[in-house]
Amino acid sequence: MTQPFAPPDPPYYAVVFVSLRSGDNPAYARTAEKMEVLAREHPGCLGLDSARGADGLGITVSYWRDEESIRSWKSDARHLAAQILGATAWYSAYSLHVAHVERSYRGPRAIV
Amino acid sequence: MTQPFAPPDPPYYAVVFVSLRSGDNPAYARTAEKMEVLAREHPGCLGLDSARGADGLGITVSYWRDEESIRSWKSDARHLAAQILGATAWYSAYSLHVAHVERSYRGPRAIV
Repeated sequence: MTQPFAPPDPPYYAVVFVSLRSGDNPAYARTAEKMEVLAREHPGCLGLDSARGADGLGITVSYWRDEESIRSWKSDARHLAAQILGATAWYSAYSLHVAHVERSYRGPRAIV
Repeated sequence: MTQPFAPPDPPYYAVVFVSLRSGDNPAYARTAEKMEVLAREHPGCLGLDSARGADGLGITVSYWRDEESIRSWKSDARHLAAQILGATAWYSAYSLHVAHVERSYRGPRAIV
C-alpha cells in the first residue's frame, strides 16, 4: 500500500497541485502516471504524494530539494506537453502552490 | 462540484496533511467532515482542499494567513481530540508539512 512520503529534515520545498477533472479521457490516466514516474526520477525530487477522490478533485504534492529542481522539472519537455493538455483538455480548474516547508511531523509516532 | 481553492496573493501558509486510513471506522467520516467545517471557520483560515483515493491515501491542504492561526487551530480542543483519535485509531501512517507559500498559479487561465 502506498505510504505517505516520509519528510526529511526541513527546509525543503513542496509543490501542491490541486485539479478538478473535466471528464473522462483515456489518455489522462496514462499520462498522469507517467508524469509521476518522471517527476520522481527528476534530479532534486525527494518524493510525491497523490490522491484523487470520487468527486474528481485531485491533489498531488511533490517534494523538492530546492527551487532550481522545481524550475527544471517545470520546463521538462514531456512535462510541458502534459501541462498544455492538462490546461486545455483535462482540467476544468486547477491551482498550484510553491511553498517552502519550515517544519514537518510524521506519525503515528511524532519524530519531530 | 467542489472547486480547487483559489489562491490569494502570496505570502500565505499551507499545511499539507497526508494520511493513510487503517480501516473503516464509522466515526471517522463524521469527525473528518466536522474538522473541515471547524478549520474553515477558524480565524485566519483562508480555505481548504481535500481528496482521498480508493487506496485509502488522503491529502488535505489547509491555507492560512499566518503561523499564529495555524498554532491556534492546532491547539483547538475539539481538534486536539480528533488528532488523538487519528494518531491512535484511524491512521496507520501520516505526515504533516507546514509551508510558507511563495508563489501560486491558477487555471485554466493563469492569473499569476
